[in-house]
Amino acid sequence: MQIPEATTRSEPALATGVWAPVLTPLDDALAIDAHGAIAHMQWLLRHGCHGVVLFGTTGEGTSFSVEERMALLDDVLSAGVDPDRIMVGTGCCALSDTVRLTSHAAEHGCKQVLVLPPFYYKSVSDEGLYRSYAAVIDRVADDDLRLFFYHFPRQSATPLSEALIARLSERYPAIVAGVKDSSGVREHALTLMRQFPHLAIFPGSETLLLEGLRQGAAGCISATANVNPHGIRQVYDACRRADASADAAQRAATDVRRVIEGHPMCAALKSIVARFRDEPGWAAVRPPLVPLAESAAQALQEGLEQLGFALPD
Amino acid sequence: MQIPEATTRSEPALATGVWAPVLTPLDDALAIDAHGAIAHMQWLLRHGCHGVVLFGTTGEGTSFSVEERMALLDDVLSAGVDPDRIMVGTGCCALSDTVRLTSHAAEHGCKQVLVLPPFYYKSVSDEGLYRSYAAVIDRVADDDLRLFFYHFPRQSATPLSEALIARLSERYPAIVAGVKDSSGVREHALTLMRQFPHLAIFPGSETLLLEGLRQGAAGCISATANVNPHGIRQVYDACRRADASADAAQRAATDVRRVIEGHPMCAALKSIVARFRDEPGWAAVRPPLVPLAESAAQALQEGLEQLGFALPD
Repeated sequence: MQIPEATTRSEPALATGVWAPVLTPLDDALAIDAHGAIAHMQWLLRHGCHGVVLFGTTGEGTSFSVEERMALLDDVLSAGVDPDRIMVGTGCCALSDTVRLTSHAAEHGCKQVLVLPPFYYKSVSDEGLYRSYAAVIDRVADDDLRLFFYHFPRQSATPLSEALIARLSERYPAIVAGVKDSSGVREHALTLMRQFPHLAIFPGSETLLLEGLRQGAAGCISATANVNPHGIRQVYDACRRADASADAAQRAATDVRRVIEGHPMCAALKSIVARFRDEPGWAAVRPPLVPLAESAAQALQEGLEQLGFALPD
Repeated sequence: MQIPEATTRSEPALATGVWAPVLTPLDDALAIDAHGAIAHMQWLLRHGCHGVVLFGTTGEGTSFSVEERMALLDDVLSAGVDPDRIMVGTGCCALSDTVRLTSHAAEHGCKQVLVLPPFYYKSVSDEGLYRSYAAVIDRVADDDLRLFFYHFPRQSATPLSEALIARLSERYPAIVAGVKDSSGVREHALTLMRQFPHLAIFPGSETLLLEGLRQGAAGCISATANVNPHGIRQVYDACRRADASADAAQRAATDVRRVIEGHPMCAALKSIVARFRDEPGWAAVRPPLVPLAESAAQALQEGLEQLGFALPD
C-alpha cells in the first residue's frame, strides 16, 4: 500500500489517548436524559478521559433516532464541552442517515466521526462498503472531516477488511484518520498498527492499551473507561512517561475490566454507575437490551468492591 | 400455548395470498424514484399480487431514512393505492424510529405492518425482544394495528423464537397477526403453521407456496413476485380452486425462482426489470448493495428467456 503523503496525526483535533464511548442515561420513558449524559461526560473528562465518543455501541447509538442523536449533541455542545474532545458515532444502515448525522456533527465543529458500516445486509462486498463510505465522505464534503472506521464484527456482523481500509485511505488520505478495532482479537489490532502506521488505531479495550501504545496505537476507546477513566489514564500516562509503574497500572485496569466483562457490557456499566453513585435511574437501557438482574448487579458490585473500586466525585 | 379467543383471519384488511415486497427504484442521485415505485406497485397489483409490502429487505427498507420511507408511503397513498393492499415494513434498530414509522402507517390507514426486530445488538435475549415489540405496540396504541413478525435470521441475525411469538401473541391477541418466515427452512415454516394456526404464516418464497397453502399458510411474501406475479398467482388460484394445474404452476414458478436465486436477490430483480422493460435506471441499488455485473445480468436474462419469461405490460 502506498502511504498517503499527508499524515494527520499532528493536527490538534485528532483523537489520541483514553476515550470513553459514553453511556447514554435514560429517563422513565426511556428517552435520553441529556442532563445526566452531559454530567457524565464532564465527569469523564475531569477524571482522565482525553475525549468521549457519543453514540457508540456502549452508548446505545443505534437504539436512538437521528433526531434524538442530533438533539443530544446540540445539548452537549451548548453545555460547553469542547468539540475537539468529542467523537461522534454516525454510522447507520441508511446512507441518508449517516450523511445527515455526519454533516450535523461536522457543521457543529465535531470533525471526528466513528462510522459503522451499514449493517443490515450481511455478506456484502468490499465494493459495496467502499461505495458506502465514499458516498458519505463525498456527500458530507468537509475537508476537515476525520473519519474513524468502526470495526466491530461481533455486533455489526460486517467486518471491515484491511483491503477496504487501504483502498479508502488511499482515496481519501486526509479524511480517513483511524480505526476503532473492537474485534477483541489482539493480533488483529497489532496487524492494523503495522499495516497502517499513518492511521490512529484504537483497540476497543484497555487490556491492550500498554502493549498497543508500545506498538504504535493511538490509545484506546473502551467501554469500561465509563467507570474507570482514572485507572486507564494511569496506564497511558505512565507509558508515555516510560514510567516503571505502567505494567502495574495495566494489571490493575485489566483486573477491573475482567470483573465487568463477565456481564453484558452496557447494562453492567449502567448498573455500576447506578449503584456506586446511588442513582438507580441510571440502570435503564433501551430494548432490545435489558438491565442487569438484581443478583447479577449485586455480584458485580461486590466483585468491584473487592478490588477497592469506587467512583470519585 | 393458549389459543387467543379472537381470531383475526376473517377481517377484511388482513393479508392473504401473493404479496410482493416491492423493489424501490432510485434516481441518478440514489434517491427514491416515487413515480417509478408507484407505477411498479400498480403493475404488481394489476398482474396478480394481492398486495405489496413496502420497505422489506428486497425493497432496501433499511437503506432509507424514516423521512424517505414516510414520504414514499404518502406518495403511494396519494396515488390511490388501497391501503388494505399495502403492508409497511417498519422495524428499525431504534425503538423511536419503529414507533414513528408504525404510527405513521397506521394513521394513514395502513394497519398491517411487517416488523423486523432491532438488529444491531446480537445475541439479545427473548426478554429484550419481547420488550421491544411490546413497547412498539403499546406506544402506537392502535387497536386496529395488525403486526406481522419479520423472521429473517440470515439478514437480521436476530431470530424470533417460537416462544417469543407465542408470548407476544398471548399478550396482544388482536394485534399480533402473522409471521413472514424468511428463514428459507421448509420445516420451520411448517412448524409455525402447526404451532400458530391462528396466525397468518407467509413463507418468504413461492417455492413453498403450494405445500404451504395445503398446510395452512396464508400465502407467500416473495421477492420474486416483483417479476413473476402472474406465475405465482396461478399457483395460488389453482390451489384455492383445487385445480389439477396447481402442481404444474408451482413447478413453473419454482423454475423461474431458481434462475434468479443464483444471484444477489435485490440487484438481480432490479436488473430483470431494467432489461425486460428496457429501463436501465432500474438497475440502481443503494450501497452497500451493488448492481449486478454486466455479465451476470446478461446470463440472468438469458436464463429467464430460456424459460419463456417476459414482463407483460
